[in-house]
Amino acid sequence: MGSPHKEPIPGHKIHLLSPRTGSGGDYVPGLSCLSWRFGVETNNIVGWITVPGQCKDYVGHYMLGDQYRKDSSIVANEALRYAQSLTLGRDGKDVWVFDIDETTLSNLPYYAGHGFGVEPYNPELFNKWVMEGKAPALPESLELYKKLMGLGTRVVFLTGRPEEQRNVTANNLRQAGYHTWEKLVLKAASYSGKKAMVYKSREREKLEKSGYRIIGNMGDQWSDLLGTNVGNRTFKLPDPMYYIS
Amino acid sequence: MGSPHKEPIPGHKIHLLSPRTGSGGDYVPGLSCLSWRFGVETNNIVGWITVPGQCKDYVGHYMLGDQYRKDSSIVANEALRYAQSLTLGRDGKDVWVFDIDETTLSNLPYYAGHGFGVEPYNPELFNKWVMEGKAPALPESLELYKKLMGLGTRVVFLTGRPEEQRNVTANNLRQAGYHTWEKLVLKAASYSGKKAMVYKSREREKLEKSGYRIIGNMGDQWSDLLGTNVGNRTFKLPDPMYYIS
Repeated sequence: MGSPHKEPIPGHKIHLLSPRTGSGGDYVPGLSCLSWRFGVETNNIVGWITVPGQCKDYVGHYMLGDQYRKDSSIVANEALRYAQSLTLGRDGKDVWVFDIDETTLSNLPYYAGHGFGVEPYNPELFNKWVMEGKAPALPESLELYKKLMGLGTRVVFLTGRPEEQRNVTANNLRQAGYHTWEKLVLKAASYSGKKAMVYKSREREKLEKSGYRIIGNMGDQWSDLLGTNVGNRTFKLPDPMYYIS
Repeated sequence: MGSPHKEPIPGHKIHLLSPRTGSGGDYVPGLSCLSWRFGVETNNIVGWITVPGQCKDYVGHYMLGDQYRKDSSIVANEALRYAQSLTLGRDGKDVWVFDIDETTLSNLPYYAGHGFGVEPYNPELFNKWVMEGKAPALPESLELYKKLMGLGTRVVFLTGRPEEQRNVTANNLRQAGYHTWEKLVLKAASYSGKKAMVYKSREREKLEKSGYRIIGNMGDQWSDLLGTNVGNRTFKLPDPMYYIS
């Protein structure tokens, strides 16, 4: 799956007028990487292992430039607008589920040094980075978090990070500006070998069975947002660097 | 919902290195429309009525240029790759569900003359266009259709077009190159007022109850792909011109 995609230049036009200017028409170098990103973000391309080699620069520029931030911003803005439209219960049981990596915390400093997803995932090096506890907040998510807290929403962090990383993760969250939460759910050893979607669905089910109402659910992976008990509305943040099934 | 989205330029960086070159970094005019498109295609922005005014040129260039075709191509390629990986039953019950508008047939000639989704939907004018029966195929979907037929897959068209448009739709499909199908399902009057997702879920349920296996399901709207009985795998084609809930 992770191999580069051949994209033949489309043949006949479906409309006669076909300007080759602007962001839709130019032959901008790396433009097919835009299609690859479209495919990935819409969950059309699944199970990929690494970013196609020819898209390394594209993904790097995307992630380090403003477009990633603008894309994150539009999602956070929609989420806030939605949250503001709700009338919360007075029982403190309305929760917002946030994923952690590439959602509330950013591992961009790590990935910038490791090919932006072109290099195969290296669990040893990545976990070393995690254990440093220095991941910055994704600013758009932190702002959303603060505003959600202001609305009286409780926050649940639901992460694929293992239980062994609880302390470093909690400290990292606090240092990054996420000062409080209702629950921090890490992947218990009993889920070993289980897919993220299964683990996260099961944990969301537990939340709902214990009386919480999941009003929103935000993640960078579709496996955060599909399955069961996904919540009243889901929000997909951009992530063209890796795929978690 | 359909109003233009304010996107403040993001403030502090989450990584020091922040090149302003390439497709991710430049201040390309209309770049925030790329975020809007990301938001729409990932189902983060829902219930919108019209394309934001400042994105008319962007969407027009996108739709008439190569990017729309390349994006369609990457989806069709993934769908074909997936279909080729399957072993079909020998009972002729494996079906591929295709939506029609902006999936198998393209209304781009109509929308090019009506602001690419910036103008509010005009049912009278749009139905007049439909009744001409001149919608061209979306070439990437037609190619996929032909290849699916070659693999022995049966095709079901499931459209929000009303039952009254059956003849013109069947003729248009044939003229555009879709010569045969297992079923052509149009929206019966009994679904009047029902949301597309409800109608399509119910019709897919009927298909499955009558013994069909939905191996793939392709549409340009998330309401084609969410709900129940969505099929073994779904494929989302691009459509930044309108939203159907």
